[in-house]
Amino acid sequence: MTTAARSFSHPVRIYWEDTDAGGVVFYANYLKFFERARTEWLRALGFGQQQMRNERGLIFVVTDSAVRYLEPARLDDELTVTVTLAGAARATLSLAQAALRGSSVLAESRITLACVEAASFRPKRLPQSILDALASTALQK
Amino acid sequence: MTTAARSFSHPVRIYWEDTDAGGVVFYANYLKFFERARTEWLRALGFGQQQMRNERGLIFVVTDSAVRYLEPARLDDELTVTVTLAGAARATLSLAQAALRGSSVLAESRITLACVEAASFRPKRLPQSILDALASTALQK
Amino acid sequence: MTTAARSFSHPVRIYWEDTDAGGVVFYANYLKFFERARTEWLRALGFGQQQMRNERGLIFVVTDSAVRYLEPARLDDELTVTVTLAGAARATLSLAQAALRGSSVLAESRITLACVEAASFRPKRLPQSILDALASTALQK
Amino acid sequence: MTTAARSFSHPVRIYWEDTDAGGVVFYANYLKFFERARTEWLRALGFGQQQMRNERGLIFVVTDSAVRYLEPARLDDELTVTVTLAGAARATLSLAQAALRGSSVLAESRITLACVEAASFRPKRLPQSILDALASTALQK
Repeated sequence: MTTAARSFSHPVRIYWEDTDAGGVVFYANYLKFFERARTEWLRALGFGQQQMRNERGLIFVVTDSAVRYLEPARLDDELTVTVTLAGAARATLSLAQAALRGSSVLAESRITLACVEAASFRPKRLPQSILDALASTALQK
Repeated sequence: MTTAARSFSHPVRIYWEDTDAGGVVFYANYLKFFERARTEWLRALGFGQQQMRNERGLIFVVTDSAVRYLEPARLDDELTVTVTLAGAARATLSLAQAALRGSSVLAESRITLACVEAASFRPKRLPQSILDALASTALQK
Repeated sequence: MTTAARSFSHPVRIYWEDTDAGGVVFYANYLKFFERARTEWLRALGFGQQQMRNERGLIFVVTDSAVRYLEPARLDDELTVTVTLAGAARATLSLAQAALRGSSVLAESRITLACVEAASFRPKRLPQSILDALASTALQK
Repeated sequence: MTTAARSFSHPVRIYWEDTDAGGVVFYANYLKFFERARTEWLRALGFGQQQMRNERGLIFVVTDSAVRYLEPARLDDELTVTVTLAGAARATLSLAQAALRGSSVLAESRITLACVEAASFRPKRLPQSILDALASTALQK
């Protein structure tokens, strides 16, 4: 089992909307890219977030984000955004994410997600089906 | 009654988030500025949109936007964004809006808003209190 | 030659970043989707915008956008965003664009692009290579 | 000298553009608010970033951002976003920032800025005039 094997990847193209007058991607937008990749990772595991909300009244919220910006991305760049599960607790998931251009890491992050009730934002135990899917993913590697 | 007298104005400062790699404000972001000014215009008339939704289950949606981009705005610019009521029907409002830097019009727009039920997005008659407020505003000028 | 045959299509997935507290896609964000599709359309024609800027000092700017919003898009939706050339003049292109979910048109627009010098934003004649590519595309249909 | 005394504050109103379908502010947007407050803090110290770029060819880039999201912000909320200098080195500034609603801290962050050459993104010594302004600010407290 390698780190690469445990990672999910999602491609992101850089458009005008992502850049700023410095000629590079605005720093807040990496959090958008990381979110897109997490959504696709959850979808690949079988979890549509709209469905999770409609059926269970649960949503994920980010409680912590730490990002290191190493190199700028520019218009037309094709990035690969990765998601690696770094830990799971009763109501939270910890993820390592990175944005790469080829083999260069442009930004890397540690993100903590909490499962909360959509109406109240109170923490809720992660659905067992998600824990099972995460465990089976880990076992397959 | 002058055009100026019938207009509401809201200041908007240009930050990095608003610009793109062309060195100027990204064209979609003028729609954000126009929306901010409309929200402040409604607030000045006494209508918080959060309150309108909680109490009546109604929200405004844009059904048409036409924008002419005349001159670019840049980082650090201070714009004035205006709202002028151009027409009101049973369930819609028509607004003329502009973004100016000093006396230069950078962008001008015609926006149509529809009042809809938040749950279904079905058109609903405008609340009488809004029509009254709009009418009294017009009369004062 | 059919309308479909003359259109370019680009897929757009709806993420959290695209939605607002009304539960649907924020109206300004359709302009982002339209821009992404235009960029991919130009790229498919052989024109990277970064390259066009570096080699010729030219960029495209939007001078007019008119959008009709017909139906809301929601989280997780997969849209198809189309680009159809509606006209070309010395320094401008006119495009018809739409965002569809399946066969439902959610938003449709008419966009005018001007070719300008990146440094001065002064209008410049469209590069002949773009006109040739557009003409040959039209002829193939 | 108290922490409050050393802080700069900037008001931020929450608009539709800032929210997502969860009904609250999208997590990436706090980085926009933090950036706006930093820009106003620099401006209050006498440093327009456009000017810094034009005259010296220097821009600030974020190299690290760590954010804790404690409570959600919602449509119409009025936030106060603070900037506190936490440290200055040869080419970097370290800032503590927070977004508050009344006395409730909604999000808090530690941000590292590097001064770089706009053309190359290579690190450059902070302009002495900025260091002087920061020092004199600290002395006044």
